[in-house]
Amino acid sequence: MTESPLIRTRVVPWRFEAGALSFLDQRKLPSEEHWLECHDAAEVAEAIRSLAVRGAPLIGVAVAMGLAVEARRLVAAQEGSFEERLEEAFVLLSAARPTAVNLPAALARMRRALLAAPGARPAEAAALLEREAAALAEEDRLACLAIGRNGADFLETLLAPGDATLLTHCNAGALATAGIGTAIGVIRVLGARRRVAVFADETRPFWQGARLTAWELARDGFDVTLLPDVAAASLIASGRVGAVVVGADRIAANGDVANKVGTYGLALACHAHGVPFVVAAPTTTLDLDLASGAEIPIEVRPCEEVLLVDLPGVGQVRIAPEGVGALYPAFDVTPGALVDAIVTERGTALPPFREDLARFAAAAGERPGP
Amino acid sequence: MTESPLIRTRVVPWRFEAGALSFLDQRKLPSEEHWLECHDAAEVAEAIRSLAVRGAPLIGVAVAMGLAVEARRLVAAQEGSFEERLEEAFVLLSAARPTAVNLPAALARMRRALLAAPGARPAEAAALLEREAAALAEEDRLACLAIGRNGADFLETLLAPGDATLLTHCNAGALATAGIGTAIGVIRVLGARRRVAVFADETRPFWQGARLTAWELARDGFDVTLLPDVAAASLIASGRVGAVVVGADRIAANGDVANKVGTYGLALACHAHGVPFVVAAPTTTLDLDLASGAEIPIEVRPCEEVLLVDLPGVGQVRIAPEGVGALYPAFDVTPGALVDAIVTERGTALPPFREDLARFAAAAGERPGP
Repeated sequence: MTESPLIRTRVVPWRFEAGALSFLDQRKLPSEEHWLECHDAAEVAEAIRSLAVRGAPLIGVAVAMGLAVEARRLVAAQEGSFEERLEEAFVLLSAARPTAVNLPAALARMRRALLAAPGARPAEAAALLEREAAALAEEDRLACLAIGRNGADFLETLLAPGDATLLTHCNAGALATAGIGTAIGVIRVLGARRRVAVFADETRPFWQGARLTAWELARDGFDVTLLPDVAAASLIASGRVGAVVVGADRIAANGDVANKVGTYGLALACHAHGVPFVVAAPTTTLDLDLASGAEIPIEVRPCEEVLLVDLPGVGQVRIAPEGVGALYPAFDVTPGALVDAIVTERGTALPPFREDLARFAAAAGERPGP
Repeated sequence: MTESPLIRTRVVPWRFEAGALSFLDQRKLPSEEHWLECHDAAEVAEAIRSLAVRGAPLIGVAVAMGLAVEARRLVAAQEGSFEERLEEAFVLLSAARPTAVNLPAALARMRRALLAAPGARPAEAAALLEREAAALAEEDRLACLAIGRNGADFLETLLAPGDATLLTHCNAGALATAGIGTAIGVIRVLGARRRVAVFADETRPFWQGARLTAWELARDGFDVTLLPDVAAASLIASGRVGAVVVGADRIAANGDVANKVGTYGLALACHAHGVPFVVAAPTTTLDLDLASGAEIPIEVRPCEEVLLVDLPGVGQVRIAPEGVGALYPAFDVTPGALVDAIVTERGTALPPFREDLARFAAAAGERPGP
């Protein structure tokens, strides 16, 4: 196989230098590239809660950076006990969103780093947290590259030679990670080896596909076609889709995958038509303490996010009449039985998943990264 | 069973009196109730093409009324040959939209009425077309009532006693017919017998669920909850949906059903979880000349309807970045194998459908209506 020596993206949604942290505000894309400065943990938690910062791996990176920024602020401000205030930041950040396991996993890692330096003075602790957050981001960047290569290798065993057409849902790209993306990382690496056209589900109600995936793929020169979410099933039935590749927010021990709501419907359509359905995620997304997807907490977001359409540059516009309710579970669970592969930076897990996932998780527990 | 003696709706989207024709402009709902006057066939064709008037049965009724209005206009205007100009109106109306068979079926009926009165003078022909259009609307109104009763009877054989929860897609209601609706007709009749809660898919990109179904059900006092389209599969998997009821735009001899894009995905989810999937449509929606759904022409609408969000009172707002394409097939085909029943005004067809549908179509060929 031929592959460009450097797989890169022009899209990097975070800046973390010299203690200054900011994120590209994903609510305002694609009409505006606005950077949101975060000066403390509360601002990072709010950025995550409001979806300015989203995507399971990036949420993990963001809470780590948020904790580091908070620690540095506490050192400077000298308000009360450093340890107690830092503990409050842990609590605040851990409650930002419930479904992506990368969030608690990143906080647990930050806590391990602190515990490994007992008796560290606040300034030392702050520096240590800053290094750990940067290391986490760098590992996520490398994990994305490895996922991209593993996923592209796997797809090449399944796809016919020549041009490929892939479909993805939501945004599991550079905007969702600290690197080239997970699902979109796979698309990027395959795209460096052969011509790849991408169908992107628009992904209502937050439009991650229309606003984010289409934007980042177009910016990197991909041929991308937007699809109303409801059109994916018949497109898959038509035979025009070579494979569906999506990210994940939490993966249970049996291979059940929580991901953006709508993923399950795609998996059903792929299953009905023999189209490969591939999940791409770093091992930080594995939660092998959960026996199955039934145990994954599914975030239910406010009704208003369905009843009112929030458009960049316009604001909120009511689409439904008054007096009507709405239900918006932000994620759904796809049974492992419908998944053909779970691609991680440690390798590609195949059905029935349990052993492969356990092996990859164990390997990830032993540093260094891939 | 107990049932309110009068099943009615406050929603009537058309006015056709003394030769004056107007339609409730469905693009402006729910924020504005604007009536669109149609003075000739061209205005009716444009109203249909632009989705101001939509819904397979209503499209049939609308072209019949459009032809009648055109005929009356031609009589008054005395521009050239009445027959030739009327023929142009037939051509114009027949090209308004391709998928709903109710459109060509209604025009064929109008032509039969003309042919049954050879030598009629223009004024007589115009009066005859007006009566025929009114008769077609009245038959559709009665068909909706019969579909509602037949569908409710069928659902009662499947649903557990007590409150019921139904899910519907797009709008197959009063706004799509000349009566209480087809799928929503079933919901209305069942709702007169027991408490019914409705989940309505928002139905991107035209939002028929959010703007139309939620509006008409709320107006008639129903408990209605809006759902992002992508959330239906996991809701069905959760066991909270008693049955899915949808309309149809064209039904082939083998029971394959073309309906609003997204219907196929719902049918797959119902099939995976043993939830009844019911199609409700008048016999005018049957096209038994087609052996299967593969022969049904599927309308592909302009990319802009996906790339730009068109909101009542706001106008078009670009949601996707420049340089991105889009694909918007307005319908999909659900194989008859995934359908549990096709409810018509002549009875409820059961798998494998072929014989039942042929019998109902034959009976409908012999007037009078149900």
